[in-house]
Amino acid sequence: MIQKYNPIGVIYTPFKERAGMPIQPSGGSGLQGTVEVYPEFREGLSDLDGFSHIILLYCFHRIEGFKLRVVPFLDTVTRGLFSTRAPMRPNPIGFSVVRLLGLEDGILWIENVDILDGTPLLDIKPYVPEFDAQSKIRTG
Amino acid sequence: MIQKYNPIGVIYTPFKERAGMPIQPSGGSGLQGTVEVYPEFREGLSDLDGFSHIILLYCFHRIEGFKLRVVPFLDTVTRGLFSTRAPMRPNPIGFSVVRLLGLEDGILWIENVDILDGTPLLDIKPYVPEFDAQSKIRTG
Repeated sequence: MIQKYNPIGVIYTPFKERAGMPIQPSGGSGLQGTVEVYPEFREGLSDLDGFSHIILLYCFHRIEGFKLRVVPFLDTVTRGLFSTRAPMRPNPIGFSVVRLLGLEDGILWIENVDILDGTPLLDIKPYVPEFDAQSKIRTG
Repeated sequence: MIQKYNPIGVIYTPFKERAGMPIQPSGGSGLQGTVEVYPEFREGLSDLDGFSHIILLYCFHRIEGFKLRVVPFLDTVTRGLFSTRAPMRPNPIGFSVVRLLGLEDGILWIENVDILDGTPLLDIKPYVPEFDAQSKIRTG
């Protein structure tokens, strides 16, 4: 069963290439970008400005093919793909939590971006700590 | 530009219908499910058992069409779609953080599920608080 998705907008950032791009920064990089939501979807942005952080789902649009074993960024050992955030995935969908600085006329100003310029946007969801932040964490 | 995705597995849960299903529970429901990853992708599961929590991306497979304004679960006011987790989205991709209880032969045992039985799985990513947990949060 093939799923087909149409982008609802575009993400603009300072990063023209993956080289030099921060990988999944949190609470820190300060680097800003914008999200343009296409006019036909803008009605769905109401009330989003009540949230300080949002989840962006997007396409890793420069990626072709995938690898099931990768050497992650800042690592030296080969790992199983699904234990990493590497973009070469069977379904190359990216996920980032970013800070929402402002929202006007279908343009979102965002901070702490780790996304390539021109990335197609698939979805926006509110970031809700009660759902999304977990405690008693162990990472591999 | 249409994006095409092929499921990499299936999520099995106690929920045959949306009615009665917890919505985005956190750290609490205790309800368990399993994820079957198709054999051709299982090599990518190496090292995942080092993580206590994982992110699942999946298809809201029972959804047809979308609404840009919705009345969210436990709310009485109409909201912009993107400020909610409602499944009737232009790109019906679901996102949940779940606890990983165990992993063997391509089957993952998970806890705190809020996902319908038989849901097609698109991706698995490790949950990493440094990337995904934000502080100084404001929700709408």
